[in-house]
Amino acid sequence: MHKLLTPILLFFLLSCHHTIAQKEDSLVIRKIFTEAMSDSTGYHNLRYLCTRIGGRLCGSPQVEKAVQWSKTTLEAMGLDTVWLQECKVRHWERGNTEELVINQGTSSAIRLHACAIGGSIGTDKAGLKAKVVEVKDFDELKSIGRKNIEGKIVYFNHPPDPAHYYTFDAYGELAQYRVYGVDYAASYGAIGVIVRSATLAYDDFPHTGVIYYADTVQKIPAMAVSTKDAEKLTRLLKAKPGLEISMKLSSMEYPETISYNVIGEMWGAVHPEKVIAIGGHIDSWDIGQGAHDDGAGVIQSIEVLRIFSTLKIKPACTIRVVIFMDEEMAQRGAKKYGEFAKEQEEVYKSSQAAGGSNVIAGKTKQLQLGSHHVAAIEADRGGFTPFGFSIDATDDEVRKIQGWRDLLLPYGLYSLEKGGSGVDIRELKPLGVPLLALVPDSQRYFDYHHSANDTFAKVTLRELQLGTFAMAAMVYLLDKYGM
Amino acid sequence: MHKLLTPILLFFLLSCHHTIAQKEDSLVIRKIFTEAMSDSTGYHNLRYLCTRIGGRLCGSPQVEKAVQWSKTTLEAMGLDTVWLQECKVRHWERGNTEELVINQGTSSAIRLHACAIGGSIGTDKAGLKAKVVEVKDFDELKSIGRKNIEGKIVYFNHPPDPAHYYTFDAYGELAQYRVYGVDYAASYGAIGVIVRSATLAYDDFPHTGVIYYADTVQKIPAMAVSTKDAEKLTRLLKAKPGLEISMKLSSMEYPETISYNVIGEMWGAVHPEKVIAIGGHIDSWDIGQGAHDDGAGVIQSIEVLRIFSTLKIKPACTIRVVIFMDEEMAQRGAKKYGEFAKEQEEVYKSSQAAGGSNVIAGKTKQLQLGSHHVAAIEADRGGFTPFGFSIDATDDEVRKIQGWRDLLLPYGLYSLEKGGSGVDIRELKPLGVPLLALVPDSQRYFDYHHSANDTFAKVTLRELQLGTFAMAAMVYLLDKYGM
Repeated sequence: MHKLLTPILLFFLLSCHHTIAQKEDSLVIRKIFTEAMSDSTGYHNLRYLCTRIGGRLCGSPQVEKAVQWSKTTLEAMGLDTVWLQECKVRHWERGNTEELVINQGTSSAIRLHACAIGGSIGTDKAGLKAKVVEVKDFDELKSIGRKNIEGKIVYFNHPPDPAHYYTFDAYGELAQYRVYGVDYAASYGAIGVIVRSATLAYDDFPHTGVIYYADTVQKIPAMAVSTKDAEKLTRLLKAKPGLEISMKLSSMEYPETISYNVIGEMWGAVHPEKVIAIGGHIDSWDIGQGAHDDGAGVIQSIEVLRIFSTLKIKPACTIRVVIFMDEEMAQRGAKKYGEFAKEQEEVYKSSQAAGGSNVIAGKTKQLQLGSHHVAAIEADRGGFTPFGFSIDATDDEVRKIQGWRDLLLPYGLYSLEKGGSGVDIRELKPLGVPLLALVPDSQRYFDYHHSANDTFAKVTLRELQLGTFAMAAMVYLLDKYGM
Repeated sequence: MHKLLTPILLFFLLSCHHTIAQKEDSLVIRKIFTEAMSDSTGYHNLRYLCTRIGGRLCGSPQVEKAVQWSKTTLEAMGLDTVWLQECKVRHWERGNTEELVINQGTSSAIRLHACAIGGSIGTDKAGLKAKVVEVKDFDELKSIGRKNIEGKIVYFNHPPDPAHYYTFDAYGELAQYRVYGVDYAASYGAIGVIVRSATLAYDDFPHTGVIYYADTVQKIPAMAVSTKDAEKLTRLLKAKPGLEISMKLSSMEYPETISYNVIGEMWGAVHPEKVIAIGGHIDSWDIGQGAHDDGAGVIQSIEVLRIFSTLKIKPACTIRVVIFMDEEMAQRGAKKYGEFAKEQEEVYKSSQAAGGSNVIAGKTKQLQLGSHHVAAIEADRGGFTPFGFSIDATDDEVRKIQGWRDLLLPYGLYSLEKGGSGVDIRELKPLGVPLLALVPDSQRYFDYHHSANDTFAKVTLRELQLGTFAMAAMVYLLDKYGM
């Protein structure tokens, strides 16, 4: 053979190989799509989780029911192993009394649509009554000063900026007042906080979420008010700056309790010790059904395994579903899983150094071998039409994933960009694990998020299925081509 | 100057110019985005159109109210001209009686969720009663043959294929039975037709739509049944193949009436005789509110002019909103506009040949000058998060539009592909006009389309605004860079 021909032929053969692989991938991905869109098991499971179990605040009996339900559901799928990972969680309860009332004389009291912010202390039985100081942001609070704030209720009314395409950017600007408002206000002597709900919607639904109390500041109670009533309150305050508000809350923190991450695995046929972790969180706020946040993500993760199983796709690596506990309050499940992953990585390194084996005969054996994360995907941005993935990884890894774009684009997955992932998997960051977040259409998410409006009825079958497909296709590619 | 430097310098200067233009475009598009997302005029207008005027079948008093409302709304915007373009339309009415009942003996009659298909003849007062032949498609009908069909009701039960990413592809497979089923069935001697609703949803809503009767075949009545009841009917037919169905319809065709396209223009500052037409259709089916189909498209088109006006963007070409009449029944408005465009193109050519002037002193003068379409955009695929545009144009024109992708991608407009446009603007195709269709997320469209479920409540403010933005940004680029 002519010498010059050799590299040309090699190039040609490699190109052919590449094209054949692409063709095969495209066919498998098409099958995954058809299965994801044709089966409604996940949708019916989500209905059960949302309407039969309902809101699932960590520490509640409901979330424990959901843990058991998740375990049973995974077990019924005939996986290689299903187990619970214990973690301690906070136990806060809203209680029965949540009142935010504008007093304008006894006859014309106006009750606002409001709810306790998660983790808030309660008031005493009589509640508290005080004048209101409205501020737009922390700077305005500072400029008003302690003299004018002491003994009053601070009302953070920061309206959303609609000129963000991605609504999480708008939410980020709003949520800080809910999370940190109490400490700022208390440090100026305020006795309570009202926060305009962190949403772009204009309606009567208050949106809860978590609060963080610093240890150094007096704890004061905090409530979120619906956006419509926020604007009403602002109007009334303009008309009567001295008006008084009554706040009555029976929320309370109880001793910590035991709960669990739920883990289910399909062991890898070639590298059982290498893990692709996928997951969402099972806990949710109590006032809704936790449908988009994050029943959808849990269901989609479980569905990935169902699809692999139905299509008899034998992954080379272990596919591990992690149903995280306590994303909403303190991410205790995420921390627990992060510690476990770190330990397992160390065991993996030693067993690899010692010559290693990758034969898994059971869970004990598996833990002895250790495991190494190839990648992790979190689904926690709502069950809407997916656009792609946000990738927290090295530039090389991001480019590799972007190389799969042509396979994903026919299904609307156009966006494979470097960016953040999610709070449940970011604990794996120090281990150098490539982290991905499923990115769905964000336009409607904060209309429902953390409110009584986050119900099963707001989830569309096909949108949920498309998210499942996106996860399954990405897992297929990560498994086949590694990282 | 060294000779070699000249082309390099030229290239450099051109690149700079290109970069500066890109930067400027990006800033203007950002302004358009902010305005589109910050103003809810269009949303409130859509609310009025849907909830105050309601369903707007051509030939109805409601659609005439909507025409007047559109005209008044455009006039209030201080445009250069607003006018009505007369066209004749069909006038069909559903009437008060729509019954589809399974007779299983008098005590257990089951009334199905069903409605007349648009344009169907009625039955006589007593209705008709007959046995049912269920078929999946036209081939099955043929194989069953006249002997087994004569005197019976044909039931087309073609389930949707969920494995299309783009739901319009699934719809296309279903709609043929609704549109042409009557003629096929009648040609085999059937006396009535039932069609499974053309939707991917599984619920109790029947979906109407248009029917076409061929002149050569006996007209028989036709009804659409909800997908849930379609499956119920199938189950019952399996159990009792001989069961009888009663169909009673009071629908009727009345003499044709006069109606109108509504046209509003912002004249071009440089080329008033060159037109970018944008539009949607004002008529809708009677059983819903015509929110996604196509109140949204009408509102988004009007909003483009409001945004240009508010931001004081002076277009070089004339921006013409065309609010089309009668898309649902016979596209009479589209045909009328097509004829007008053709005439105006001829006048334009002669006036250009005669040295031309482009000073418009009024509508008469404008018509004397003629006009030439630079491009046309139709918005008639629902008010959902937009993904881009489908472009029916030459390859060069498509490539030119694709060259603007970087400007549109930050707003999720990733898809600028060659494809079909829409039935209201396709009449411009013979004139060689580049035609564009706004392409929104299609996942939910057919859940609502042509059903009582197509209501204002199903439209999300931000999704509607994003569609408006997409249209306005595209008009800005088409106006600036021509075609």
